[in-house]
Amino acid sequence: MGLSDRDKKHLWHPLTQHKLYPEALPISTAKGVYLYDEDGKRYIDGISSWYTCVYGHCHPYILERVTSQMHLLDQVVFSGFTHEPAIRLSEELIKILPQNQGKIFFSDNGSTAVEVGIKMALQYHFNRGEKRNVILSLEEGFHGDTFGAMSASGLSVYNGPFEDFFLEVERIPVPTKSNLGNLLEQLEDRLQNGDIAAFVYEPLVQGAAAMKIHEAEHLNAVLTLVKQYGVICIADEVMTGFGKTGEHFASDFVTTLPDIICLSKALTAGLLPMGVTTCTRKIYDAFYSEELAKGFFHGHTYSANPLACTAALAGIELLTSSEIQENIRCISNWHLEFQEEMEQHPKVMGTRQKGVVFAMDLHLQTDRYGSLRDKLFNHFMDSGVFLRPLGNTIYILAPYVIQREEMDSIYTAIRTVLKIV
Amino acid sequence: MGLSDRDKKHLWHPLTQHKLYPEALPISTAKGVYLYDEDGKRYIDGISSWYTCVYGHCHPYILERVTSQMHLLDQVVFSGFTHEPAIRLSEELIKILPQNQGKIFFSDNGSTAVEVGIKMALQYHFNRGEKRNVILSLEEGFHGDTFGAMSASGLSVYNGPFEDFFLEVERIPVPTKSNLGNLLEQLEDRLQNGDIAAFVYEPLVQGAAAMKIHEAEHLNAVLTLVKQYGVICIADEVMTGFGKTGEHFASDFVTTLPDIICLSKALTAGLLPMGVTTCTRKIYDAFYSEELAKGFFHGHTYSANPLACTAALAGIELLTSSEIQENIRCISNWHLEFQEEMEQHPKVMGTRQKGVVFAMDLHLQTDRYGSLRDKLFNHFMDSGVFLRPLGNTIYILAPYVIQREEMDSIYTAIRTVLKIV
Repeated sequence: MGLSDRDKKHLWHPLTQHKLYPEALPISTAKGVYLYDEDGKRYIDGISSWYTCVYGHCHPYILERVTSQMHLLDQVVFSGFTHEPAIRLSEELIKILPQNQGKIFFSDNGSTAVEVGIKMALQYHFNRGEKRNVILSLEEGFHGDTFGAMSASGLSVYNGPFEDFFLEVERIPVPTKSNLGNLLEQLEDRLQNGDIAAFVYEPLVQGAAAMKIHEAEHLNAVLTLVKQYGVICIADEVMTGFGKTGEHFASDFVTTLPDIICLSKALTAGLLPMGVTTCTRKIYDAFYSEELAKGFFHGHTYSANPLACTAALAGIELLTSSEIQENIRCISNWHLEFQEEMEQHPKVMGTRQKGVVFAMDLHLQTDRYGSLRDKLFNHFMDSGVFLRPLGNTIYILAPYVIQREEMDSIYTAIRTVLKIV
Repeated sequence: MGLSDRDKKHLWHPLTQHKLYPEALPISTAKGVYLYDEDGKRYIDGISSWYTCVYGHCHPYILERVTSQMHLLDQVVFSGFTHEPAIRLSEELIKILPQNQGKIFFSDNGSTAVEVGIKMALQYHFNRGEKRNVILSLEEGFHGDTFGAMSASGLSVYNGPFEDFFLEVERIPVPTKSNLGNLLEQLEDRLQNGDIAAFVYEPLVQGAAAMKIHEAEHLNAVLTLVKQYGVICIADEVMTGFGKTGEHFASDFVTTLPDIICLSKALTAGLLPMGVTTCTRKIYDAFYSEELAKGFFHGHTYSANPLACTAALAGIELLTSSEIQENIRCISNWHLEFQEEMEQHPKVMGTRQKGVVFAMDLHLQTDRYGSLRDKLFNHFMDSGVFLRPLGNTIYILAPYVIQREEMDSIYTAIRTVLKIV
């Protein structure tokens, strides 16, 4: 029996209605920007396997480092114990994070990094004797699929079975030039109640909302206002972190810095799952007490897994290398050129770009998952390019190691698809 | 600066009040049943690093398999794509799981495995047009630290800041010979409402409740009753799974099988984080539909990470080997002998044993984290044994590869500690 048939027997894939989408394509190997299927056909990984493998697949330096670590220390309880890879990672992260961040807390993925962020914010107020029980978030935000992270996300048609179980969350529109005045006014009214504990947001780029981009200046105005009312700002940089926006973190573009930052995905360079929640000393100090119960009693078994920490360390070395920084600038410039071209195209409704992220909306109404979206997807795969359109939005977030010629293959596949839709 | 001081600068450890517990012991290497600190002092890992490294640390066969996989395929999106390690793992898991399990869904840790289980149960009813919004769980249960998993857990003094945000959960006492009649009667009354969606429980051994053990027969009576009322049974085998109880799964001891099983910890043999939620065809079929929205729209980026799948595959090979099965039987027998001895000890209030799990309570009142507990912990560490007492409970859950002589060192350390308390 072939892999594809064996797959169908026992696997339940994420985000998949198996009756409508019975087929999963078996991938056998990956190297650099390429995925290879069973027949040896190759596909440029145009979304870096969900924004993770930004230094390319199976990067020899990362593999070498992780292999060495594997023979020294695989795993140890991270309560009462520590190890070099976690310590070094904390040091290297602090060097590149926004300068107000002081402490590093580990978990296993983006959802848990956000759960930790929300719990830190709630307990921060609780430990200081304040009762605040409303979370503020952005419309169309996405923060993960566990109950806390799901609650903070924008309402989705897929959340129906779970909405009765959500945390109390209020959503505000993404700030724009035109709505900013009204938004700030209404928000200031709302803040008077003193019950808003935290504001959770994806800074600058909302990934799952089809790479919607907003201006740092407008976000900054919201952050500045909510901070005046003691609201803890939680930047979900799970998608934007580690170079995607052109800077190491999207928060580097704002002047009012977040209290808490959530990281995952490219953190471990696409090799292993890990989440990190970072925070300022001010947050940490509210938990530092002679009272045991003021501590943060959250913990996952594989917290600070030494292999994942090592992959992250190797990733940060690559990220901060002049070679990768130069590539990020190149990709950004190629996108700008392509964006100019696409802006003129009659079938294109709008385009946007930030760092290595490029997105464009087609002049067509379509469902997030639907037949047009499938037609686009299939066309790209036939062309040897893995892109994952979201409704009528096509976006690119290729590995930072992509060469001009390979990026041109992606652009060409997009130009061609515009002819057939 | 030494590792211990560097640790203090930026790391926030899980489940730790840093003001009361400022020191974390740096572990440099691990091999087999041993952890080694910076000075080369070795400690028997008497709790398998939180029940994960059951085949011993840095097992050469597991490392070899994972290293090979690492050079082939590190990571790929698991929606629309698949790969050999995930497919083979699904096949191997199905072979050893209780026979009613049919489908495998991936996530990244025990908390997310439980969140997935709860979401599957809620949406199962929702998709069938039934509104059920109460979760049933056991008193003193522990299921994780994300909001959904935390809600299902027993109420803890540490949950204060979050209780306003919990799912609606009702807790029943752990069934015992003496309470069973009453419990079933009251439960049957409660079930008439038809609003109980799921029953979440740790079968046979409640890990975080200090290895409390209950009888399969009594649990089975509860399962049989709630199933008659259409309640989905979710066995949290994150701790008990993969041989801990003597059988592959604790659910192997009950005749009424769970609809959903949550796995993590030893799943990946202590190398990498991964969670798995398995379910019956009946659950899966409620999602299999031409309606897109009836699908399960839950997904973590690193779902079915090929490296973690490979570690799990190597782990299952070891688990099912005659060598490991024989070791599990030996450990169980050694524990029975030691249990007889401890039962006679005047400072011991009670003992319990199931498979490789041995636990005993001291005739002393103490806090979960407190000075007596610290005294015990420090004594064990001084003796070169890593045990992690919970309040006045001392328990052992050593790697399956432990030799008699090493287990004797643990027993001796316990005998000695009884002299000093």
